[in-house]
Parts: sequence; structure tokens; C-alpha cells
Amino acid sequence: MAIIAPSLLAANFLKLQEAVEMVNSSEAEWLHLDVMDGQFVPNISFGPMVIEFVKKVTTKVCDVHLMIEEPSRYFEQFKKTGADHINIHIETCPRLHQDIQQIKAMGLKAGVAINPHSPAWLLSDIIRDVDIVLVMSVNPGFGGQRFIPHTIDKIKEIKQLIVEKDAHALINIDGGVTLENAAEIVAAGADALVAGSTVFGAKDPVAAIHKLKNA
Amino acid sequence: MAIIAPSLLAANFLKLQEAVEMVNSSEAEWLHLDVMDGQFVPNISFGPMVIEFVKKVTTKVCDVHLMIEEPSRYFEQFKKTGADHINIHIETCPRLHQDIQQIKAMGLKAGVAINPHSPAWLLSDIIRDVDIVLVMSVNPGFGGQRFIPHTIDKIKEIKQLIVEKDAHALINIDGGVTLENAAEIVAAGADALVAGSTVFGAKDPVAAIHKLKNA
Amino acid sequence: MAIIAPSLLAANFLKLQEAVEMVNSSEAEWLHLDVMDGQFVPNISFGPMVIEFVKKVTTKVCDVHLMIEEPSRYFEQFKKTGADHINIHIETCPRLHQDIQQIKAMGLKAGVAINPHSPAWLLSDIIRDVDIVLVMSVNPGFGGQRFIPHTIDKIKEIKQLIVEKDAHALINIDGGVTLENAAEIVAAGADALVAGSTVFGAKDPVAAIHKLKNA
Amino acid sequence: MAIIAPSLLAANFLKLQEAVEMVNSSEAEWLHLDVMDGQFVPNISFGPMVIEFVKKVTTKVCDVHLMIEEPSRYFEQFKKTGADHINIHIETCPRLHQDIQQIKAMGLKAGVAINPHSPAWLLSDIIRDVDIVLVMSVNPGFGGQRFIPHTIDKIKEIKQLIVEKDAHALINIDGGVTLENAAEIVAAGADALVAGSTVFGAKDPVAAIHKLKNA
Amino acid sequence: MAIIAPSLLAANFLKLQEAVEMVNSSEAEWLHLDVMDGQFVPNISFGPMVIEFVKKVTTKVCDVHLMIEEPSRYFEQFKKTGADHINIHIETCPRLHQDIQQIKAMGLKAGVAINPHSPAWLLSDIIRDVDIVLVMSVNPGFGGQRFIPHTIDKIKEIKQLIVEKDAHALINIDGGVTLENAAEIVAAGADALVAGSTVFGAKDPVAAIHKLKNA
Amino acid sequence: MAIIAPSLLAANFLKLQEAVEMVNSSEAEWLHLDVMDGQFVPNISFGPMVIEFVKKVTTKVCDVHLMIEEPSRYFEQFKKTGADHINIHIETCPRLHQDIQQIKAMGLKAGVAINPHSPAWLLSDIIRDVDIVLVMSVNPGFGGQRFIPHTIDKIKEIKQLIVEKDAHALINIDGGVTLENAAEIVAAGADALVAGSTVFGAKDPVAAIHKLKNA
Repeated sequence: MAIIAPSLLAANFLKLQEAVEMVNSSEAEWLHLDVMDGQFVPNISFGPMVIEFVKKVTTKVCDVHLMIEEPSRYFEQFKKTGADHINIHIETCPRLHQDIQQIKAMGLKAGVAINPHSPAWLLSDIIRDVDIVLVMSVNPGFGGQRFIPHTIDKIKEIKQLIVEKDAHALINIDGGVTLENAAEIVAAGADALVAGSTVFGAKDPVAAIHKLKNA
Repeated sequence: MAIIAPSLLAANFLKLQEAVEMVNSSEAEWLHLDVMDGQFVPNISFGPMVIEFVKKVTTKVCDVHLMIEEPSRYFEQFKKTGADHINIHIETCPRLHQDIQQIKAMGLKAGVAINPHSPAWLLSDIIRDVDIVLVMSVNPGFGGQRFIPHTIDKIKEIKQLIVEKDAHALINIDGGVTLENAAEIVAAGADALVAGSTVFGAKDPVAAIHKLKNA
Repeated sequence: MAIIAPSLLAANFLKLQEAVEMVNSSEAEWLHLDVMDGQFVPNISFGPMVIEFVKKVTTKVCDVHLMIEEPSRYFEQFKKTGADHINIHIETCPRLHQDIQQIKAMGLKAGVAINPHSPAWLLSDIIRDVDIVLVMSVNPGFGGQRFIPHTIDKIKEIKQLIVEKDAHALINIDGGVTLENAAEIVAAGADALVAGSTVFGAKDPVAAIHKLKNA
Repeated sequence: MAIIAPSLLAANFLKLQEAVEMVNSSEAEWLHLDVMDGQFVPNISFGPMVIEFVKKVTTKVCDVHLMIEEPSRYFEQFKKTGADHINIHIETCPRLHQDIQQIKAMGLKAGVAINPHSPAWLLSDIIRDVDIVLVMSVNPGFGGQRFIPHTIDKIKEIKQLIVEKDAHALINIDGGVTLENAAEIVAAGADALVAGSTVFGAKDPVAAIHKLKNA
Repeated sequence: MAIIAPSLLAANFLKLQEAVEMVNSSEAEWLHLDVMDGQFVPNISFGPMVIEFVKKVTTKVCDVHLMIEEPSRYFEQFKKTGADHINIHIETCPRLHQDIQQIKAMGLKAGVAINPHSPAWLLSDIIRDVDIVLVMSVNPGFGGQRFIPHTIDKIKEIKQLIVEKDAHALINIDGGVTLENAAEIVAAGADALVAGSTVFGAKDPVAAIHKLKNA
Repeated sequence: MAIIAPSLLAANFLKLQEAVEMVNSSEAEWLHLDVMDGQFVPNISFGPMVIEFVKKVTTKVCDVHLMIEEPSRYFEQFKKTGADHINIHIETCPRLHQDIQQIKAMGLKAGVAINPHSPAWLLSDIIRDVDIVLVMSVNPGFGGQRFIPHTIDKIKEIKQLIVEKDAHALINIDGGVTLENAAEIVAAGADALVAGSTVFGAKDPVAAIHKLKNA
């Protein structure tokens, strides 16, 4: 059974409390928080202030995904406002090892996020240092996109890398996860699933989370 | 009587709809929306997605303040999601005249924002082209700061510049506006007041808006 | 027989029309257009305006090579002025998959360009999405350089990758292609050859194109 | 009588030699060359290579206008390929005094370009060091725009600054100069006029140059 | 009598301790420390590590001059390693007021540095907030340059601004100060003089400091 | 026996001459010089000026390690001030092949530096062109860190790559090298060892160098 991480990006921002409380009442373990700066990705979503509000209500693990340039400038601020995990992109971190150590030294779980075009093997020298690999199965920046098929192969490659390197990272899949493809994704090796519109667009979001978990 | 522009930055983001509806029910004319990218200012607030939600509920003019690098990349997106005004910073716009024309060509009101250290005279060759001068009376990036006293002089200088140049821009003051200092600010020449914690931190926000308006 | 793509960079810019008409009268299928911004490469060549003039005269496919930072800002402009192909560099595109999809969504062919030091397998997760791989056999930025010998190995590796991944991309070689080495390059797996001085520096450019094609 | 500087940006790039020879045969003293990098302005025009070709044919002074980031990186290259004047923007040169000295130390004339929104007084501490002030009367980046009316005031202010500071800089006006407004511009204090479409869009460009000169 | 601030940039870096001890034994009050990052200026000098060593020996006030991009990233580090003053450039600080407050909030003296081409009146809205105005009388980046004559006018203008605004900032002059021109500089209004080669290039540096002080 | 390259970063900067002369008197072959710009790494160390002083005294090969953005801007300056080797980072050089050729064309040895998270195979298409691979066994930016264990595997992988590609590059290890781990590092394939605190923190630095060499 996969860990489910509903993404707040797909929630109704007029009534965030309700959205967060719905997640509280569900089987989801994590709450996925997509931070975008309009530089690394062509969209601005939200930042520490919104997370601070969410933290007051949520009972789940805050899984923060930084789609921003030079993320290390903001590690401290995100920790203060409630992040439990910080995921950063290999594509924008020329000093990735240092950044990962810094996240872990703050007592948080560290994840490395990887864009659709980046090969799995690029992770070979960092895989033993991270707690999570966040595999982008759509292009980062917007919700509601379709799952990129070759992600299935990539999940398998990353799984194999984890085994070979005797690493312990969880594989989390972000983008286009649906009730239809969740089983195949988990079968390929995913440990966790981010889900946005599949959850928040459902008539019964709590039930959708249950179904994803049991896919 | 000044135009009042409550800043959503000070609202409860767990219950944005209530905050927006409170403003709807008040005498405020504008709703001030502070967009920060973590690059031009050391904070990330929110972007087009949040504004799109706000737009569904608000009956007020959406006064968007872009504290971001190269803002022209996002004009179209902010227009689509509901901006009525777009304010951009003279400190980060080497092609300011072009950017202002572009905002106006989209049918929106254009404002130029000016940081505390930038002299009023820097506006001399753009003042006739803008609809609004957004005078930062605190440093951009965070709510809850105290009004910088020399802003009073700056308001007077900008007012004088507007008269000299036969311009029509409104002067909007952003930061540290309180029930105590509002009258002095208006007397110095302000046409509009942004107010964050003074409104959203009040027991009766609608009454606070009323008092600001009649300061 | 390889596709031949004469590079306008080596033409006489005082008489571009003659150069374009010479190519029209030849067996070349593509016209290669090298756009440099002085940031990604240490030279500024030309941009959309020149391409718009070329498009008025050429009867060939316009194969545009963007050696510029953040190329996605200019996709629309290059499409409007006549690009049929847009090639972008893996070295400067942290969101390469998205950029490639965007080019294809505009109805153009999309190419990924790869610098001499970048390994072929960096393309493993994008090769199925592109129409062209533009292999730099010299360093981008200037015409008239000598072919880097290890490119032969790289062509073979990319060919193998295409086969393994069941991809359909054409391999185009850019830099230092001569009448002497063309046959070896094609034998290694190249589908297309960019040629600058070999064509425009020849006494009979049309004949040079013919010879390259039959190398 | 003003110096006339036809801007090659408005010429037919398919037949540059004809355009340059037309200017040779005219009363124009300077040939204006607009270099854009797609970063400082939202367009890429052309660079040193095109200027090198132009230099082979022109008999006029090459007045190069760098609309590029960090222009000092390219001074040497532009000198080599034929620049007689180099104009750089105050908006993108935090070390403007040094850059101007560097241009002059290479034996070239140095100009400072100023965008429409920048006040004339910003030039007060550099005016004595430059040979030319290039006043943008449209926004840099594209040809064919209309003259911004407040430029007339700005020309007068710069003229006054030159007198006050006992400086010797020539005032050159760039953008939207026509047969209709040339006289007023010269009367305000302009020493030179850049003209693009007014020259190259005319039936008789040589005659248009003559008329501008005698406006 | 002016404050004298010998600049370590002109010292023998093979024997820094001797240089620092010479300054200790002199009438100089400050030790000027030029930090360059190779980005804001075209040279890399030294950083916090060198200052930490100097601090172990010096008995003088450490006057740190940051010629670096986004200096606020390094305030904390420079404080820790011994800075008493931090001077930052108006040309590279779009949030100058905030940066100045931050330096002062750390218990240090804050200075604003101004390049040769920047007009004195750009300081009008920050002059009351700073402890020091560091007037560049050469272009930042290298030692051993000649004093730019128009600096004398600029010193007078800044002095007048200080008086008008009832401010308390000291005026410190950096670059090309010699035994010959020191008196004129002080007469124009300077409170402090940075001196590099004039001190460290002298046969008797302590005597040179004495002469500068009594110029 | 490995080449030993004491890193000046760990020396006493108050008495650099003594440090350099100690190295002169030792069995070390190279002197490692760490240049940091505060941009590529979060620290500023020193630049060409310090190296120029060192060069006056040292009898060893100057092995310069550029931890800076766009290093090619400074190649000329480092050559002039005495560099014998220039090492640049694959993580910040999108045109790495060109940069390496440029270093070699100046008559210097060229090295490619690789951060802890970057896989060895990223070097496959540049390994034949470089004289040195500088393997970071700590994160660049500060001295005194502990050796990252997986570096041992990386050294073996790079050694294998060198053999496979019939390349001639030396492998130099930078960070956390001690008397305890030196033997294992050399056994894994290292040709040279950078040593900072192990040398300069020793009671007898010359003896420490001797021991490292014979580890």
C-alpha cells in the first residue's frame, strides 16, 4: 500500500481549512505542498506564509516540494513554518550534496526531485544520501497534466539503483496520478503517490484517497 | 476620503473566502494583492492561482503588487486571473516605460512602486504615464512592519511632481498604515491606503476600514 | 544519402539573398540558422528579424538552432518569423521536456542540441520525444572550427540509444563537416549534416552540397 | 544641420550591401547599428559578424548601440569588427564610469544611452566623460515605433546639463524620428538623429536623408 | 583632521601581520577591507577568512567594503569574522533601506558606497539612515588608480545633502587619495580617507598616515 | 607515491610567506589554491592578487581551483598572476569542452572538478581532453570537512573510465584527506592528494607532507 500525499495545489484556496481537515480525516499520510517561484518554473504558487497557516491545522507530514532557484536560501524559513520534508531539484542544485546534508542537519527528511528529461542514473551518487526521490511524472509548474508514460521505466530504473547502492530512499511520484494508473505505478516500484485533481476533483476526496491507497 | 485597499497578506489564509467577503461588505474600494517571488524580495507569498480564486468572490478592484523579477513575463497571466491594476517596481524594471505601456495596452491600470530608499525624482519621466504611484512606506517582503517616517516627505515630493508635470497618478501608500497615522498620510497627499494588520488584525475589520477611510 | 543543411553563418551577409537562392537551387533540404545571444555562447549572431527576411526567399526547411539562454521565451517569435525546426540545448534547459512539448505543440519539429562534453546517455529520457538530435562536433559560438574526433563515437552511441529506445529522432551533425570527413560521419549514423564554410567557402557551393550529399 | 545616422535595423537584410552603399552615397555621416541580445531587450538583432561585413563596404562612421547585458564583455570584439562609436545603457551598467573609460581607452568614441523612463539628471556625473548621449525616444528593442512626446523636454534638460557642466557631448535621438518632427527635435537641442523607417521606408532614401539633414 | 583608513588591498599579502601591526602602531583609526567577488567588480580580492585573521591582530575599526552582488547574503558571516562597519553599494542593492537596517540591527555601522557615475542626490532618501557615505573616487575593482577630479564636486553635494536632511553620516573617500590631494579632499567635506598605495607604497607608512591625517 | 598538493586555504594568512616557504621545503609537488567567489560556493576566499604574491615565493606548481561562476572570464587573469593548472567545475560550465581547450591553448594544464553528487560517467566525453580530474571528497566552500566515504567508489569508477577511454588524466582528491585515509584513497586510484588542515594543522607540516606522500 502506497503512502498518499494529496497536493494542496489542487485544493480550493478560498477554503483551505476545509481542504486540510478533509486530508486529516483521510488515510493520507503526507500533505504535499508545491512551492513555485516563477523562476525555476513558469508559475508562482505559494510560500512559507501559506504553509504556516496549513501547519496550524494539519495532522499530516508536510512534504514540501521546492520548485525554486537556489532553494538553500529558504531552508530555514520553510523549517520554521512547518516543513517535515524538503524536496529539491537536481536540475537547479549545483551543490546538491551540500544542500541535502543541510536539510538533514536541520532534522528534516531530504528529497531529491527529478524532472522528466533527467535520466535516473544522474542520481547514482546522491541516492544513498536522500530519504525520498520525487519523480516528476509531469512537467513541474502546473496541476492537472497527464502522466508521462516513460515514467514507469524510470521508476524501475530508480528502484534498481536503490537496490544496487543499498540505499533506503522512498520513491514518490508527482503528476498525473489517477485511480486508473496508480496500480501500475505502485507495481513499478513507487512507495508514495502525490495526487492533486484525483483527490480534490473527486466527489468524495476521502474515498478517492482510500482507493489510491489500495490501488 | 482616501481609497482603502486592504492587503490580503494579513488575512487568514485558511479562510480566504471569509476574508474576501468581509472586504466586499466594507467601504474598501480596492483589494491589495502582494505577489512575492523570493528573488526580488526575500519571501514567497502567492501568485496567479490564489488571485484566480479571490477573483471568484471579490466585488472589489484587484490591485496587484508584483514584487518579482522581470515582471513583464507574468503580465498576461495576472490579467487572465483577474488583475485590474498591476504595480511594478522601478528598482527592477530597466525598461519601465515599455512595461507600463504594455500593462495599459492590456486594458489595465498601471502603477509604479518605489522602495523607501529611491528618491521621488526618479519618477519624473514616468509620472505622466502611470495611473498609480505605490509608495513603499516599509520594506517590501513582509507584513506587520512600522511606517518609515520620511515617507511623509516623499509623499509631498511626489504630489509636487504630479502637479508640476500635470500628471494624473493616484498616490497609494503601502506599509505600516494605522488608525493613528492615516490622517497625517492623507494630509501629505495620499489618495489611497493599503492596510494589512490594521484591518485584518482588528476586532471589527469593517469598522477599521471605515475609520481608515474617514481618518 | 544525408540531408544537407547549409549554415547561413558562413554566408556573405552583404548578399544574403544570393546565398539563400544558391541554397534554393541546390540539393540541400534544410537551411541551418544559428541564433546566438552572447550569453549562452560568447558571440551574437542574428535573430528573428534576419530569419524573417530569409523566409521570404528560401524554399527550404528552416532549421533554427537556438544558442541562447531560456530559449522558450522566444519560441513564439521564431515560429512567427518562419522556423520549421527549433533546436535547443540540453545544457541550458532545466525543463527540457516541457520546452520540447511546447515546440511540438506549435506544430514545429523539435530538436535537442548537445555540446561536445555532454555524454550521449544524458539524452536517454528525452530521445523518444524529439525529432532531431543536433550533435555539436565543434564548440558552439563560431564558424570555421575543426571537427572534434570523438564525435564519431558519440554518433554511434546516440544511434544505439535511438535503437534501444525505439525512438525516431534524426541525428544532425554540426561543426567541422568537410568533404573529407562526411562519409565517415554518415557511416557512423548521421542522418543530416550542417555545413558552413565547406559550402559557402567553396568555389562552387552547389557542387559542394552535391558532393556532401553523396559522400 | 543635424548629423544623420540611418539605422540598419530598418534595411533589407537580404541586400545589405545595397543598403550600405545607398548610405555611402548620401549626406549621412554615421551608420547606426543596433545590437540586441534578447536579454536587455526582448529581441535579438545582430552582432559583430554582421558589423564586420558592413565595415567592408561602408564609408561612414559606425555608431554601434549595444542593447545588451554586461556590454563590456564585448567591447574588444566590436572594436575589432569595426565600431567607431560604442553606446551603452545607463540602465544596465552599474560600473558605467569604468565602461566609458574603457571604450575611450580603446580609441573609440563613447556614448551613454538612456531609456525613456530614466531622468536626464541621472547623467549629471557622467556627462563630462562621454562623447555622445543617445536619448531613446522609443523603447529599445524594435523599429517602427512612434516618438514619445516628452522626449522633447528631456532633450532640453540634457542640453542644459551639458551647458551647466561645461561638457561636450553630442545629443543623438533614437526612435520615431520623421520628416515631420525632425525640426522640432533639432530645435530642442539634438545634434544627431537616428532614422530607420523614415530612411529605408522612403521611396528615395538618399533624398529622405537630405530632408532630415535640412529639417 | 580626517579619519585615516589604510586599505589592506595595497599591503604585502605575504606578510599581512606586519602590515596590520604597522597600522596598529599608526594614527589611523580604521582599517579598510576591500571584498570583491568577481561579479560586481571584475576582480576577486578576499573574503571573510582573511578578515578573521586580520581581526586577531588589528586594534583598529574594521571598515569592510563589500563590492559584491546581493551583499545581504554575507552580512552575518562578515559580522562573525570581525566587521565593525559594512559598506554596500547603492548600484547593486534594490532593497537598500532594508539592507542598511539589517546591518544596523546587527550592531554594526552601516555605510552606503556610491560609484563615480552615480549622482549624489540618489542618496537623498537614505542619507539619514546611514553612518557612512563611501564615495568612490576611482572605479572599484583595483588599487593604484588616479583620483577622478569631479569627486570634489560630489563631496560638496553630499555634504550639502547631509546638512539639508539633518543627517549625521560621515563622508569617506576611496581611491587615489595622495599626500598632494588630501587637503583639497578634506576641505571639500571629507571626514575620512581611504589610502592604499599612498600608505603601503611609502618608505615610512606610519609617517605617511601621519601626513595624511594632518593634510 | 602520490603527488601532494597542500591547500593554502588552511594556512595562516597573517604569515603566508612562511606557509609558502614551508611548502617549498617539503616534498609536496603542487600548491593548491582555492578561489571562491561567494556565488558558486557560499564563501569568498581569495583571488588573483593573493596568487600573484604567492607566486613570488613558491617554487611549486600552482594548482588553481576555480570555485566561481563563468570561470572563463578569469582564465587570462589567473594565468598572468601565476597559475600552472586551472581546474574548473563541470557543474557550472555549460561549454566545458571549449573552456578546457582555452586553458590548454594558454599553455596551462587543465583540470575538471566534480562535486560529490555528480556521477563519474558525466566525465566520459571530456576525460580524454583534461590533464586532471579534481574529485571533490567534501562539498566545496570550506576547509576542515570530513571525507565523504562514497568517494572511494567514485575514484575507482573514474580510474576505470580513464582506462576505457585510453585517457591520461591524473586523479586529484580534494577534501578531508588525512594520514589515516590517504593510503586507501591512493589504493583506489588517486594520483594526487590535496591536503589542508592535515598539513597546516600539524605540528610538523613538512613531516605530515612526507607521511602523506608515503601513505
